[in-house]
Amino acid sequence: MTYELYYWPGLQGRGEFVRLVLEDAGEEYVDVGREPGGVKKLMRGLEHGLDGVFPFAPPYLRAGKLVLAQTANITRYLGEKHGLAPKTENGRVAASMIAMTIADLVAEVHDTHHPISVQQTYETQKATAKKRGDVFRKERIPKFTSWLEHMLEQNGRTLTGSSISYADLAAFQIVCGLEYAFPNTMKKQAKKLPKLLALRDHIAARPNIAKYLASPRRVPFNETGIFRQYPELDP
Amino acid sequence: MTYELYYWPGLQGRGEFVRLVLEDAGEEYVDVGREPGGVKKLMRGLEHGLDGVFPFAPPYLRAGKLVLAQTANITRYLGEKHGLAPKTENGRVAASMIAMTIADLVAEVHDTHHPISVQQTYETQKATAKKRGDVFRKERIPKFTSWLEHMLEQNGRTLTGSSISYADLAAFQIVCGLEYAFPNTMKKQAKKLPKLLALRDHIAARPNIAKYLASPRRVPFNETGIFRQYPELDP
Repeated sequence: MTYELYYWPGLQGRGEFVRLVLEDAGEEYVDVGREPGGVKKLMRGLEHGLDGVFPFAPPYLRAGKLVLAQTANITRYLGEKHGLAPKTENGRVAASMIAMTIADLVAEVHDTHHPISVQQTYETQKATAKKRGDVFRKERIPKFTSWLEHMLEQNGRTLTGSSISYADLAAFQIVCGLEYAFPNTMKKQAKKLPKLLALRDHIAARPNIAKYLASPRRVPFNETGIFRQYPELDP
Repeated sequence: MTYELYYWPGLQGRGEFVRLVLEDAGEEYVDVGREPGGVKKLMRGLEHGLDGVFPFAPPYLRAGKLVLAQTANITRYLGEKHGLAPKTENGRVAASMIAMTIADLVAEVHDTHHPISVQQTYETQKATAKKRGDVFRKERIPKFTSWLEHMLEQNGRTLTGSSISYADLAAFQIVCGLEYAFPNTMKKQAKKLPKLLALRDHIAARPNIAKYLASPRRVPFNETGIFRQYPELDP
């Protein structure tokens, strides 16, 4: 089966969490938004639904007869299907908890550059972004990353269970994104996060992920995405 | 089995989404945070974990040998276990998608009064709250509520599947909360949301929910919760 991923072209965004699971699992997929006419298809799904499912926003995924939306919902489904999720019930709900918490963190990253309105440009809300960014750097990054580090201290090389799951892939992506958007802050945090950074390296070296990261399928981080490198937000 | 719900006392907050599922299912639970010494217990779980699980934040739930965190993760688990979730795979991922989208909306409601920092009081960020609140009232409330309405138009009396699920209970709660916090806006929206308001009434009349709403277990909405009635945010 070939999956169909529906996400905006030109940015990693929330779609990247889904791509990483598909790539690591070695599953075939079409990145619909990047195909000719793809954005139109994507918009049609948002307006009229896809097979009776109404995603609130991308990413959404067609998996044969199933259509799924919400990042942590999609990655849970794919992870459990393709050996990238714990097999015990404890592990399954723990991986889901971690993926949802990372999704919350992603929303907070977004709001550092769009603290007032998602519809308006960064430039119109820069002063507020500076304030929210300060709090995010000083309070939220340490809180979220130390939480991930702590779980690794307790569990070992993975966040939950004994092998890599979609929760670890999500952690990889959030670390890469934070390092791109907040390089100075993350440099300062580095010595407190040895296990999280080791997990990032470990994931980056997985054969399918390494191949993916070196391919044109990995969109470079850029300032239309969720992780944006605005120096004024990371002084 | 008696469930243990860990949530802050004195407010509905995110804990309420879990309470509603437990109450509707008629399951026994202890609301740990409201018991003597309960907040200390809750804090201990956040600091040291509970049975090896590390919730990032409340609510979290002990379900026998299982510990779960993240609202939409907990309600999915309870819903699927107690007949408050669709039985098909399509339905299960749809209910999860809806619950996660409502959780995103809850975070946006929170940020209308805390647009810069969760650690600081509303009073310190009132000017920004006004701006974010304006956008939320004008753009976000219509977008989220019309999305819910549209799904009801397509599916019937419930958001997904043929009987009430935890997704419907979450929709009930978000409507009640928005009506409390943004009464003027919701009054204006009302004629566009006949099905969503009918769902709210239908849920409120379910015997276990009606009993719950009339009981002291239902904490009244108040200005320490997520849904706050600040007239300046709903002119």
